[in-house]
Amino acid sequence: MAGENLRPERFFSSDPDVRTLAVEIYESIRDLPILCPHGHVDPQLFVDPLQRFGNPTELFITPDHYVFRLLFSQGIPLEALGIQPLDGNHANVEADPQKAWGLFCSNFHLFAGTPTSLWLQEELAGVFGITEKPSAENAERLYAQLSEMLQMEEYSPRRLYERFRIEALCTTDAATDNLSAHQALQNQTWAGRILPTFRPDKLTNLKNPTWRTDLSNLEVLISKEITTYPGFIQALEDRRAFFKQIGAKATDHDVLTPYTAEFTPAELEGIFQRALRGNADAGDAHRFSAGMLMEMAHMSCEDGLVMQVHAGSFRNNNRNLFEQFGSDMGADIPVQTEFTRNLAPLLQKFGNSKNLTLVLFTLDESCYGRELAPLAGHYPSVKLGPPWWFFDSLGGMQRYFEAVVETVGFYNLAGFNDDTRAFCSITARHDLWRRASANWLAGQTAKHVLGMQDARVIAQELAYGLAKRTYRL
Amino acid sequence: MAGENLRPERFFSSDPDVRTLAVEIYESIRDLPILCPHGHVDPQLFVDPLQRFGNPTELFITPDHYVFRLLFSQGIPLEALGIQPLDGNHANVEADPQKAWGLFCSNFHLFAGTPTSLWLQEELAGVFGITEKPSAENAERLYAQLSEMLQMEEYSPRRLYERFRIEALCTTDAATDNLSAHQALQNQTWAGRILPTFRPDKLTNLKNPTWRTDLSNLEVLISKEITTYPGFIQALEDRRAFFKQIGAKATDHDVLTPYTAEFTPAELEGIFQRALRGNADAGDAHRFSAGMLMEMAHMSCEDGLVMQVHAGSFRNNNRNLFEQFGSDMGADIPVQTEFTRNLAPLLQKFGNSKNLTLVLFTLDESCYGRELAPLAGHYPSVKLGPPWWFFDSLGGMQRYFEAVVETVGFYNLAGFNDDTRAFCSITARHDLWRRASANWLAGQTAKHVLGMQDARVIAQELAYGLAKRTYRL
Amino acid sequence: MAGENLRPERFFSSDPDVRTLAVEIYESIRDLPILCPHGHVDPQLFVDPLQRFGNPTELFITPDHYVFRLLFSQGIPLEALGIQPLDGNHANVEADPQKAWGLFCSNFHLFAGTPTSLWLQEELAGVFGITEKPSAENAERLYAQLSEMLQMEEYSPRRLYERFRIEALCTTDAATDNLSAHQALQNQTWAGRILPTFRPDKLTNLKNPTWRTDLSNLEVLISKEITTYPGFIQALEDRRAFFKQIGAKATDHDVLTPYTAEFTPAELEGIFQRALRGNADAGDAHRFSAGMLMEMAHMSCEDGLVMQVHAGSFRNNNRNLFEQFGSDMGADIPVQTEFTRNLAPLLQKFGNSKNLTLVLFTLDESCYGRELAPLAGHYPSVKLGPPWWFFDSLGGMQRYFEAVVETVGFYNLAGFNDDTRAFCSITARHDLWRRASANWLAGQTAKHVLGMQDARVIAQELAYGLAKRTYRL
Repeated sequence: MAGENLRPERFFSSDPDVRTLAVEIYESIRDLPILCPHGHVDPQLFVDPLQRFGNPTELFITPDHYVFRLLFSQGIPLEALGIQPLDGNHANVEADPQKAWGLFCSNFHLFAGTPTSLWLQEELAGVFGITEKPSAENAERLYAQLSEMLQMEEYSPRRLYERFRIEALCTTDAATDNLSAHQALQNQTWAGRILPTFRPDKLTNLKNPTWRTDLSNLEVLISKEITTYPGFIQALEDRRAFFKQIGAKATDHDVLTPYTAEFTPAELEGIFQRALRGNADAGDAHRFSAGMLMEMAHMSCEDGLVMQVHAGSFRNNNRNLFEQFGSDMGADIPVQTEFTRNLAPLLQKFGNSKNLTLVLFTLDESCYGRELAPLAGHYPSVKLGPPWWFFDSLGGMQRYFEAVVETVGFYNLAGFNDDTRAFCSITARHDLWRRASANWLAGQTAKHVLGMQDARVIAQELAYGLAKRTYRL
Repeated sequence: MAGENLRPERFFSSDPDVRTLAVEIYESIRDLPILCPHGHVDPQLFVDPLQRFGNPTELFITPDHYVFRLLFSQGIPLEALGIQPLDGNHANVEADPQKAWGLFCSNFHLFAGTPTSLWLQEELAGVFGITEKPSAENAERLYAQLSEMLQMEEYSPRRLYERFRIEALCTTDAATDNLSAHQALQNQTWAGRILPTFRPDKLTNLKNPTWRTDLSNLEVLISKEITTYPGFIQALEDRRAFFKQIGAKATDHDVLTPYTAEFTPAELEGIFQRALRGNADAGDAHRFSAGMLMEMAHMSCEDGLVMQVHAGSFRNNNRNLFEQFGSDMGADIPVQTEFTRNLAPLLQKFGNSKNLTLVLFTLDESCYGRELAPLAGHYPSVKLGPPWWFFDSLGGMQRYFEAVVETVGFYNLAGFNDDTRAFCSITARHDLWRRASANWLAGQTAKHVLGMQDARVIAQELAYGLAKRTYRL
Repeated sequence: MAGENLRPERFFSSDPDVRTLAVEIYESIRDLPILCPHGHVDPQLFVDPLQRFGNPTELFITPDHYVFRLLFSQGIPLEALGIQPLDGNHANVEADPQKAWGLFCSNFHLFAGTPTSLWLQEELAGVFGITEKPSAENAERLYAQLSEMLQMEEYSPRRLYERFRIEALCTTDAATDNLSAHQALQNQTWAGRILPTFRPDKLTNLKNPTWRTDLSNLEVLISKEITTYPGFIQALEDRRAFFKQIGAKATDHDVLTPYTAEFTPAELEGIFQRALRGNADAGDAHRFSAGMLMEMAHMSCEDGLVMQVHAGSFRNNNRNLFEQFGSDMGADIPVQTEFTRNLAPLLQKFGNSKNLTLVLFTLDESCYGRELAPLAGHYPSVKLGPPWWFFDSLGGMQRYFEAVVETVGFYNLAGFNDDTRAFCSITARHDLWRRASANWLAGQTAKHVLGMQDARVIAQELAYGLAKRTYRL
């Protein structure tokens, strides 16, 4: 079936009219350079030209919560996949990566119908030339083949970056990150463009259990004690300036709800002091998060960094798993999200600013047509992010276009980003978006909602132009 | 592309089976008369046979928030489109309507994929015979052409009304409107049927900043001081009787949430007295709105006026813009809406009444299948309004049918209304609905969910019969 | 049209590629045995081999709220359909079942586009060989034909069970049911497999107006007075053990919201004592419901009964109708539902248990992709139930697959159940699911998202395997 999946017209409508148009549109954008304005690839991968990826299990399974979440849901313990618990007790952890690989391959049928299945097959075929679908039968052979390739320079991170024709790759970095990898890259002659993104969540979210430690790290970085709210704000501004100097184009903010509100300096100082004393409660955290979004919008109006807000993920819903293995274990579950009322204070203050670009993401699809498209279709500052996480899929993209375009048009979209930590899946993900865009535009063209000339221009924008302009890449 | 758009089979599925059936169904309803049971056209347009529309900018841009909202979202100031601020300061306002028209034309690509793009092109082609898509290149020529036509009798409001084959056109009129235009029309021999609709929002919404003035206007109209809640209710009943006498078929109510509840007369009197003294707070306004919906349902049971409830629009979300330019500036953003619990008190009291027709509209599509279809599929009084505002689009209509028909059938739908203030777009809007209906019915027929004979009958109902019976036109 | 509806390719896409694949997939599963893991058929029907269904009105109209709700919505009083009010006042009740049947037939057009229309036509054709669509013209003749058939052994419940090739039929039974019918069936040689399901709602929902009586019934059954919370819990455990012994595979829980929370034994005892004294308030009922779901999950971990939770129906929304006719009168209206936060306490305690199978159902489609698929795609205990009630329809199934599969895959689905009290509609309902599944898989295959071999395996799972394994049938 992997072979089948590589048919040139894959993922397009089976309607011959639509398919023909989709192929034509797709071919006009297929080879455009790739822009990655938002993602989670480790910049360290690119610092050393000799750097190699690890073994197939380390590359495909243990870091990818999309993969192991579905195996876990079917009763496979994380330990059996070689995932290490926080307490360092390795007693139950599969030590042989090839055994974990075998478990994954023999359960590959569980991924049928999911984008993970498509990404993995596209990646195996497109990057490594393997057109077989993983199975119990070929697990050992695939492991050997991949292991061999992963040691070759041809499959090193830098060579793949070049082969993928990536024009810019933005990483995501804690506000307290010293950006040493990015700085090292700046001092080299390699042409790859790896840019940091400022993510201050650990400092702005008072529920973060390590908040005090993270604040201390911030103090170390700026060589100053932080004892007041204005001092805290100043430190964040300093870090933003530093990130910008190293090439950052954007900031990123994960919030459970996109609540924003204006508070007096005294209120914010009060919360901050309680946080310093370890006395901040849930209400404080909620208000602080709201105040921080206001501050970040204000700072973006000043320094021009694009502000990205990802809302609606209830993190670490499975508490036992969280205690055993930590975050990002596939147990982040979306919740209902409300943008119109929550963002009103921020947008009423900064929404008409020419300097602000606010990119919104949701895990609650009912918001697309109801709130996000009307907001982005009105406020000059608001751009609508691409389908996020669970919706970064063929169906999710189709529903996204369906839900938003009629209200927001195309030119208020932020373009695509792959949001991935799996570097080798980047081309597969962008290709899926390009195919989904081409197919959707072809459908609109076949119905005479769009003309073919418009469709072609818009396809270019969706694949490249919108991201380039939104993030000023 | 406008030329392409005028292909006879436009907007139908590209599947040949579906398309053939859609053409056949559409042709059977294309030329049915047009009923406009709900809209915002100015009745004054029709009073004087010599009346003409203004220049192209006044006709197509400045009054249409669908149009200027999208231009604003891309950074074009409203002033550049010739829109006047409330303070009368014209310093930054484009005085030359042709320049505003040029800005609109050269940005026409922004509308790609939106219903506004389709309406405008259909209107230009169908009403004015212009099959070019507006662009920077043809802006001046189109302006000249249109300006000339708009002065001709052939393009006068009355002649277009006749040419459009409109059977009845309902306007929307404040409860304090004296209906002078409607009365003038009644005293003329012109056959056009322009009917008022009773909209008391400014009196029933205590958040209305001009509430006291509007109440005074009401006092003037009924030549009586209003000092008590029963006096207020009596005044509203008097106005409804007057509207009905001038031909009104319906009332219209815009509410943020469709909250209803029963209050004691003393509670309502208390709120009303606080409102008279300017002391009503947000809670009062919320309760008063709930009480008013109950009163209106009660009055509809008495006088038979169809009750229309539009819920879920957070009006004037962009406060700066509101302060500068007032309402209807494209900054009304939808919010989540709840009908099941909110309407229970009203429906438990009046929902089984044979005299009540309650038409519900939503901007929260997730309500369609979850709440509105089950409500309309049970209560004899409830009818489901057509896709409203952002969803009055090809995709919106498709999702509407998809979401509601299986639960509610066809005969509990209220039929279509164009809800427009842009008179010249009426045929384009009805044609889109007829095409979308035909296409959807064709799809169901091609799958053998419906027989062709049923589909044809239902198409007639959707285009004409349901609206006629729901509004007793 | 009924004739048209029986075309072999009915309900499949009109796209020739998809249709061809759909036919092929469907044919491979069409004749699989039928599993009914959740439904409301009366077990008494099967105890006596001589048992017959009643007249056509009793079979098709009076017990089916899908049918009479839509007639009621169009102004037809329930009495005119022969439905008896609770007060026994028959004055306005149509006494002649043939007249009620005539009313139904002459209004059959109201069902166009609904699954009820498809079920009824499929049932008439598939079970009774009647391929005409009911109408005013043929009402009398159909009534006579059906009446005659319903007296024949060939159309007795037992013969139809065999003809339908049902492998197991689970009923739904109050915790206080003595399961006499099930026991009688166990003592017979008939091969039919009719299994009870434990539904304790009347005891766990303190808002139930007959709670005290139901508790007394429970006391009688266990021959013990229940004066304490532990005694209550013990009684429920005893009943579960009894149900399991008679063959039960599952429990079923209807809740307005799926709120769960941990309470201390003292809190639960306090609520229980207030309930015994008739003093429990709405807050008590809300908390008790949350505590009961925790207890039920705990018990399922012990006894292995599958736990089914149906959430989001506001029962008896039409109070007048409820007072006149009681429950299940077509006036249950869905409300917004929240699972992520509400279920967190339960899932954090039991969600990783190997012994728990928790099947979730919703009437709020916006939860599918946002909450239910991510939950079922992570927690080993959670399975996603099929489209429920209003969404048990061609469109509803299509939207379900579309919304959930990309996140949850196929193997975390619970398979299909018909949830019906209309025994004769069972084959029609399962056939619709099989057709919808085949069509959806064909669409995915035509787009090369799935290979044909996978699609065929998955079709078998959806039609049979998943239900069999989920419910251990």
